[in-house]
Amino acid sequence: MSITYSPIGIIHSPFTKLSGMPIQPTSESSAKGHLEIFSEFAEGLKDLDGFSHIYLIYHLHKATSAKLQLKPFLDNKPHGVFSTRAPRRPNPIGLSLVKIARVQENFIYIENIDILNKTPLLDIKPYIPEFEGAHEIRIGWLENSKGNITKKKSDERFLNQK
Amino acid sequence: MSITYSPIGIIHSPFTKLSGMPIQPTSESSAKGHLEIFSEFAEGLKDLDGFSHIYLIYHLHKATSAKLQLKPFLDNKPHGVFSTRAPRRPNPIGLSLVKIARVQENFIYIENIDILNKTPLLDIKPYIPEFEGAHEIRIGWLENSKGNITKKKSDERFLNQK
Repeated sequence: MSITYSPIGIIHSPFTKLSGMPIQPTSESSAKGHLEIFSEFAEGLKDLDGFSHIYLIYHLHKATSAKLQLKPFLDNKPHGVFSTRAPRRPNPIGLSLVKIARVQENFIYIENIDILNKTPLLDIKPYIPEFEGAHEIRIGWLENSKGNITKKKSDERFLNQK
Repeated sequence: MSITYSPIGIIHSPFTKLSGMPIQPTSESSAKGHLEIFSEFAEGLKDLDGFSHIYLIYHLHKATSAKLQLKPFLDNKPHGVFSTRAPRRPNPIGLSLVKIARVQENFIYIENIDILNKTPLLDIKPYIPEFEGAHEIRIGWLENSKGNITKKKSDERFLNQK
């Protein structure tokens, strides 16, 4: 079974190389960028300006072949890919929560971006805290990295790991 | 440009019809279910049992054609589809945050599911609160629905809306 999607727009960011990027949008080093929504979908942006945060779902277009176990940026031990946010996934889908600065026609300006320039955007969903009522949270192998996550930047490991 | 994905597994839930489902996993009426990960991807689940919550990214296989503006379950006014979680999206991708009960071989048992039975699963990502540091949150047209969200169930509007 195969499932086919088409981009609804393009993500513009200052990051043109995989290395040196913030690994998540809350990183101290994250940057501003904007989403260009193709004009045929612009009507779907109505009322989005009332929300402060959105999820972006996008295609990791520069990800190399999938690896089921790999060493993520925050650790040097191998973990199952589904317990990491690493890009080399069976379906290279990215997910980021970002803050809207403003919506202007078919452009959405965002404040904290951790995404490679020219990444194809697949979907936008409003962030609604009541929908995400997570309690008693555990973060597994990342427990040891707490406090470091927002400072860490990417390196070239997903280009080089075989 | 078209992007092709293949399911990594199947979501099993008690919900066999679109109407009457909880509209989000935190609904009071949400139910237990399990994810069946195809055996060729089982290796990718290593260390997932250390996490309490995961994001599921899945294909809304029963969604009918996209509508750029629609009336979501929580309101009777039309909104842009990207400011809703409605299923009739240009790319029918679903996103839910769910709680892991246990991981056993290639099965993940989850506690709060709002997803139709037999939905194709595309990706799993660990929930890491530090990655989602959202502050000063606004929820636009949903402000008026606060407190009602977790009680509301779906109806048949996405089957019938033209």
